Amino acid sequence: MKKTFMTLFVLLCCAGAAFAQEEGISAEMFTVNNLWVMVATFLVFTMHLGFATLEAGLTRSKNTVNILFKNTAIIAIGFLTYAFVGFNIMYPDAFAWAGVFGFDGFGIGTDAAGITKAYNDGYTYWTEFMFQAVFAATAATIVSGAVAERIKLSSFLIFSTIYVGLIYPLVGSWKWGGGWLHEAGFYDFAGSTLVHSVGGWAALAGAILLGPRFGKYVNGNIRPIMGHNLPLVTIGVFLLWLGWFGFNGGSVLSADPGLVSYVFTTTSLAGSAGVVGAMLTSWIVQKKPDLTMVLNGCLAGLVGITAGADTVGIMAAVIIGAISGLLVVFAVTGIDKLKIDDPVGAISVHLVCGIWGTLAVGIFSTNADHSFGAQLLGVLAAGVTCFAAAFLIFFVIKQIAGIRVSESEELQGLDIGEHGMEAYSGFQIFTTQ
Amino acid sequence: MKKTFMTLFVLLCCAGAAFAQEEGISAEMFTVNNLWVMVATFLVFTMHLGFATLEAGLTRSKNTVNILFKNTAIIAIGFLTYAFVGFNIMYPDAFAWAGVFGFDGFGIGTDAAGITKAYNDGYTYWTEFMFQAVFAATAATIVSGAVAERIKLSSFLIFSTIYVGLIYPLVGSWKWGGGWLHEAGFYDFAGSTLVHSVGGWAALAGAILLGPRFGKYVNGNIRPIMGHNLPLVTIGVFLLWLGWFGFNGGSVLSADPGLVSYVFTTTSLAGSAGVVGAMLTSWIVQKKPDLTMVLNGCLAGLVGITAGADTVGIMAAVIIGAISGLLVVFAVTGIDKLKIDDPVGAISVHLVCGIWGTLAVGIFSTNADHSFGAQLLGVLAAGVTCFAAAFLIFFVIKQIAGIRVSESEELQGLDIGEHGMEAYSGFQIFTTQ
Amino acid sequence: MKKTFMTLFVLLCCAGAAFAQEEGISAEMFTVNNLWVMVATFLVFTMHLGFATLEAGLTRSKNTVNILFKNTAIIAIGFLTYAFVGFNIMYPDAFAWAGVFGFDGFGIGTDAAGITKAYNDGYTYWTEFMFQAVFAATAATIVSGAVAERIKLSSFLIFSTIYVGLIYPLVGSWKWGGGWLHEAGFYDFAGSTLVHSVGGWAALAGAILLGPRFGKYVNGNIRPIMGHNLPLVTIGVFLLWLGWFGFNGGSVLSADPGLVSYVFTTTSLAGSAGVVGAMLTSWIVQKKPDLTMVLNGCLAGLVGITAGADTVGIMAAVIIGAISGLLVVFAVTGIDKLKIDDPVGAISVHLVCGIWGTLAVGIFSTNADHSFGAQLLGVLAAGVTCFAAAFLIFFVIKQIAGIRVSESEELQGLDIGEHGMEAYSGFQIFTTQ
Repeated sequence: MKKTFMTLFVLLCCAGAAFAQEEGISAEMFTVNNLWVMVATFLVFTMHLGFATLEAGLTRSKNTVNILFKNTAIIAIGFLTYAFVGFNIMYPDAFAWAGVFGFDGFGIGTDAAGITKAYNDGYTYWTEFMFQAVFAATAATIVSGAVAERIKLSSFLIFSTIYVGLIYPLVGSWKWGGGWLHEAGFYDFAGSTLVHSVGGWAALAGAILLGPRFGKYVNGNIRPIMGHNLPLVTIGVFLLWLGWFGFNGGSVLSADPGLVSYVFTTTSLAGSAGVVGAMLTSWIVQKKPDLTMVLNGCLAGLVGITAGADTVGIMAAVIIGAISGLLVVFAVTGIDKLKIDDPVGAISVHLVCGIWGTLAVGIFSTNADHSFGAQLLGVLAAGVTCFAAAFLIFFVIKQIAGIRVSESEELQGLDIGEHGMEAYSGFQIFTTQ
Repeated sequence: MKKTFMTLFVLLCCAGAAFAQEEGISAEMFTVNNLWVMVATFLVFTMHLGFATLEAGLTRSKNTVNILFKNTAIIAIGFLTYAFVGFNIMYPDAFAWAGVFGFDGFGIGTDAAGITKAYNDGYTYWTEFMFQAVFAATAATIVSGAVAERIKLSSFLIFSTIYVGLIYPLVGSWKWGGGWLHEAGFYDFAGSTLVHSVGGWAALAGAILLGPRFGKYVNGNIRPIMGHNLPLVTIGVFLLWLGWFGFNGGSVLSADPGLVSYVFTTTSLAGSAGVVGAMLTSWIVQKKPDLTMVLNGCLAGLVGITAGADTVGIMAAVIIGAISGLLVVFAVTGIDKLKIDDPVGAISVHLVCGIWGTLAVGIFSTNADHSFGAQLLGVLAAGVTCFAAAFLIFFVIKQIAGIRVSESEELQGLDIGEHGMEAYSGFQIFTTQ
Repeated sequence: MKKTFMTLFVLLCCAGAAFAQEEGISAEMFTVNNLWVMVATFLVFTMHLGFATLEAGLTRSKNTVNILFKNTAIIAIGFLTYAFVGFNIMYPDAFAWAGVFGFDGFGIGTDAAGITKAYNDGYTYWTEFMFQAVFAATAATIVSGAVAERIKLSSFLIFSTIYVGLIYPLVGSWKWGGGWLHEAGFYDFAGSTLVHSVGGWAALAGAILLGPRFGKYVNGNIRPIMGHNLPLVTIGVFLLWLGWFGFNGGSVLSADPGLVSYVFTTTSLAGSAGVVGAMLTSWIVQKKPDLTMVLNGCLAGLVGITAGADTVGIMAAVIIGAISGLLVVFAVTGIDKLKIDDPVGAISVHLVCGIWGTLAVGIFSTNADHSFGAQLLGVLAAGVTCFAAAFLIFFVIKQIAGIRVSESEELQGLDIGEHGMEAYSGFQIFTTQ
C-alpha cells in the first residue's frame, strides 16, 4: 500500500492533473480527495463575489446596482445552464442526446456508482459537477467587466447563457474532455486559456461591438473614468486570490499533498510577483504607484501561472508572475490607446496574461512533453473560435434586440435605467473633519 | 472494510443525516469527518458576517453602527450562552442539572472519550459544540434584521440571550435532540423550521410589538425606505450562500462524499433557481428587475431547500428554489400591505420560505417515511411555540424596560442615540465626474 | 493501529503542538493532515484582507488608497521575502548559506522527500512554507495600522521587507525553530508573542519615531479622529476572527481531531468574551457602548488566547478573553494619554494583549511545564529585541530617506500625495431621505 502510494505521487507529479485510476485506493483516501475538491469549489465560488466587488468598485456608482445584478444573475444562470446542458457537452464521454438536458437526464449519476470511487478516485459525480459549474460561470463574469456601464441587461444575460451553456464547454472539451487539443499535446493546467482567455476573447468582442462609454474618448483624447470605490476593488482582488487557491489547487483533482501544496506555492509566488512587477512598472512609468495597477498586477500574475502551476519551477513561477505584472500595466494603457474601452481591465488581465501564461508553459515547463508550438496552437484555436463565436452571438443579439442602452440612460446611469433603484440611496455622510 | 463502507453509503443515502454508528471506522475516516464538520463550522460562522453586511446595507446609514454592533454582540453572546446553557438543553441525552451551566460542568467531554470516535463517528465533542453554537446564534441574527432601526439595544440583547439560550435549543431538541417531533416523523434536514422559522417567528413577533418605523406608513400609504449601501447587501448574500454550503453540507454530520456533494448540488441549484425565480417575478410584477428582490430570492431558495437538501431530487430542488424566489417577492409586498414593517425582508425569507421548504419535504421527498402531515405538524408546533415565546419575552421586556427608542432618537438615528458615533464620519467624497 | 492512534491523542493533548513523529502514520492520515494545514493557510491568508479593511475603515478616506496599497504590497513582499530568505532563517535545522537565497537553493525540498510524510507527518515542505509565509506577513501588517496616515510609502515598504525578512524569523526561531527560548521552557502556541507582540513592538517604535498625526494632540487636548467607514472595520474583524481558526487551529500542525477542535473552542470563547468584556467596560466607562471598542475587544480576546489556546481550560479561555476585552479599552485610552498616536489601536490589541496572553499561559496552563517566569522571560526577550531592532531600522531609514510625509501632503491626504488617486472618486450619493 505504502509503495503504491509513493508510486502514485511520482505519477501525479509527472502527469500533472491526470489522476491515475487506482483500484486499490481506500475509502478514506477517496473521502479526503473529495473533501478537498469540494472545499476548492467553495473557494472558486468565492471568486464570484470577488468579481462582483472588483467590477462594482472600478466603475461609477450610478452603474453599481447593474454590476451587482449581473454578477448575481450570472452565477445562478451559470449553475442552471451547466446543469441542463453544459456538463454534458463538456464531458462527451458520457455524452448522449438523452443526457443533454441535464445530468444525463437527471438519472445516471445518482446511483451508487456516481458517489463512490467507482466513478472517480478524486471526487463524486456531484462534486465534479459543482467544481466544473463554478468554473463555467467565471467565463461570463470576465465579460461582464469589459462591457460594463453601457450594455443592456437583457442582452447581456442572453449572451451569457449561450456562451456559458455552449461555447465554454465546447472549447473546454477540446482539452479537458480529452478532445483534439489534448491529443495535440496542448497543456492548460487550470485554464489560462480555457477559462481566462475564453472569457477574455468574448470581453474583447463585446467591447469592440459596444464601442466606448460616452465621454471616454473625446477629440482623440483619452479621458480616465475612475472607479468609485477602491476598497471594494481591493476586497475583490483578495477574494479572487483566495479563490485561486481552489481554482488552481482544486485542478489537481485530488488532495495529493505534494502536488496541491506545490501548486499553492507557485500560485502565490506568481501572484506576489505580479503585485511587485506591476508596482515597480507603475512607479517608473506613471511616477506614482497606482493601486488599481497593483491590484490588476496581482490578478495578472495569478492568470499567468494558471496554465502551468503544476509544471513550472519555483523561480519560473516568480518570473511568469513578474512579467504578467509588467505586461498588464502596458496592456491597460495600450488597449486604451486602441480606443477599446474596458472599464475594469478585464482584457488586459484575462486575455493578455492568459495568452502569456499559456505560452509560458512552452518556455518554462519541466515536462518535456510540453512544447511552445502546441501551446501556440491552443491559444490560436481558442482565440479564433471564441472571438468569432462571441462576436457572432453579440452581433445577432445586436441586430435583434440591441446591445447598448440609450445615451440618456447611460448618462443617467444603468441603475435607474435598468433597475429603477440606486446603490447608495439614503446615504448620509458626516464630514466632521 | 470495503463492503462495510459501501453499505454505509447506502444506509446514509436512505436514512439522511442519521449516521450509522460503526465501530469499525478508522482513525483516518474519523479525522476527515471531523475536519469537514470543522470547515463547515467556519462556513456557518461566515454567515454572521453575511447577515451583518446584509442588514447594514438594507437600512439607513444613520443606523449602521447599531446594526453592526448588534450582529457582533450576537455571535459573542450566542457562543457564550450556548456554552453555558444551550448545548445541554438541546441535547438532553447528556442532560444533568449539574451540567446546565456549561459543557457538562466544564468537565465531562474533555477526557479522551470526547475527542475520539468513541464519542461520535463524525466529530469530537468540541466540534459538535462549535457547529451547534454557530447555528444557535443564527436564530437571533434573523430577528435583528426585522426589528432594525427602532429597537433599544439593551432590550434586544436581553431578548437574544434568552431566545438563543432557551427557546432555540428547546425547539431544536424536539427533533435534533431526538424528542417528540422526531418520534412523530417530522423531518428537517438542516433547519428550514428549526433555525430559519424559529428566527422568523420571533422576527414577526418583534416587528408586530415594535410597530413600524416612523414615516414608513403615512396616511395609509406605504413609503419605501431604501437601504443605503447595496454593495454591502450583495457581499452579505454571497457570504450567506457560501456559508450555506457549511450549513447544509455540514448537517450531513460527516464527510460522506456522496451525501455531502449531493447536498451541495441541491443547495446551489435551489439558490440559483431562487435568483432566477425572483428575477423573473420581479421583472414581470415590478417592470424592472429589482436587485434586492433577486438577492432575497437567492436567500429564499437557500432557506427553502434547507429542510430537504438531502432527500429531494435534483429537479425538485430547482422547483423548490424557483417557488421560493417567486414567494419571496409576493411575501415582501404582502407583509408590507399588512403594515408589518420588516426593513430587510427577514420574515419573508426566513419564515415564509422556511415554512414552504419544510412542507416541500412532504411533497418532494424521495423517502417514503416523510409525510406532509408530519411536516405540517412540525411547522405548527414550532410556530405556536416560537411566536408565543418570542411575543411573551418581548412583551415582558417592553413592560419593564421598553423595547423602542424615542421618536427623536429614531429620527436622529440609533448610531448617535445608542452609541454616540457615526458609521461614515470623516468620509470625503470626490465628485470629479 | 487503533491503539497507536489513541496513544497519539494522549501525547498530543499533553505535549501541545509537539507532534510525535510516528513512522506508522498512513498515507491517508498524512493527506488529511496536510489538507487541514493548507486550509488553515487560506484562513490566515484571509486575515490580510481583514487587516486591510480594518485599517482602511478606521482611518480617513483621504488615506484609504495608501492603506489598501500597503496591505496589498505587504502580503506580496512577505511571500517573496519569506521564500528568498525568511524560511531558511527561521528553521535553522536546514540552515545553510547556500540555502539563504530561498528554498534551500530552490532545489532541496522539491524531491519526493519534501512532499511525503518522510518530511513531516503533518504536511509537506510546500505546505509548511505557505503556512509560515502567511504568518510572517502578519507582523508587518500590524505595524501598518499604527503608522497609518503619515508614513512615507517607500520607507514603510523598506522597513517591512527588512523586518519580515530578518527580525520576525530570527525571533521566531528562538522558540519555533527550537532555539534558546524553547530550551528555557517558554511556551507560545500560535504567537501571542512571536507574531502579535513582534508586530506590536515595531508598531510602538514606529508610532513614537513618527510622532502623532497633525491635529491629533492640540494644546494638550486629545482630539479624536474617527474612522471613515465602520462597515469596513466590521468586515475586517469578522474576517480576522475567521482567519484565527486557521491561525490557532493550524498551529496544531496536523488535523488531530481532539486538539484542533479544542483549540477552536477556546479561541472562539475567548474572542466572544473579549467582545462582551469590551462591551461592558465601554458601556460603563464611556456611558454608551462603542462599536470600535467592541471590535477591538474581539481581536484582543483572540490575541490573548493565541499563546495558550491548546493548553488552558475552557473557563480560563473565557477569563483570558474577558480580561483582554477590558484591557484593550483602557489601553487605547492610556496610550492616547501618552500622546502616542495609534490610529487603529494596533499597539493595544497586539502588544498589550499579546503580552497578557503570553503571561496568562503561566497562570492558567494545565501543563505543569509552563511557568510564569519562562513566559515573562519570553516577553522581555522579544520585547527588547523587537523594539530595539524596529527602532533602529526606522531610525536609520529616517536619517537616510525620511519616514514621514510632508505636512501639506498629510493634510491633503496620502492618496493624492503618494498615489495620485482617490479612493472614492466618481461617487454619487443620492440623499433622497
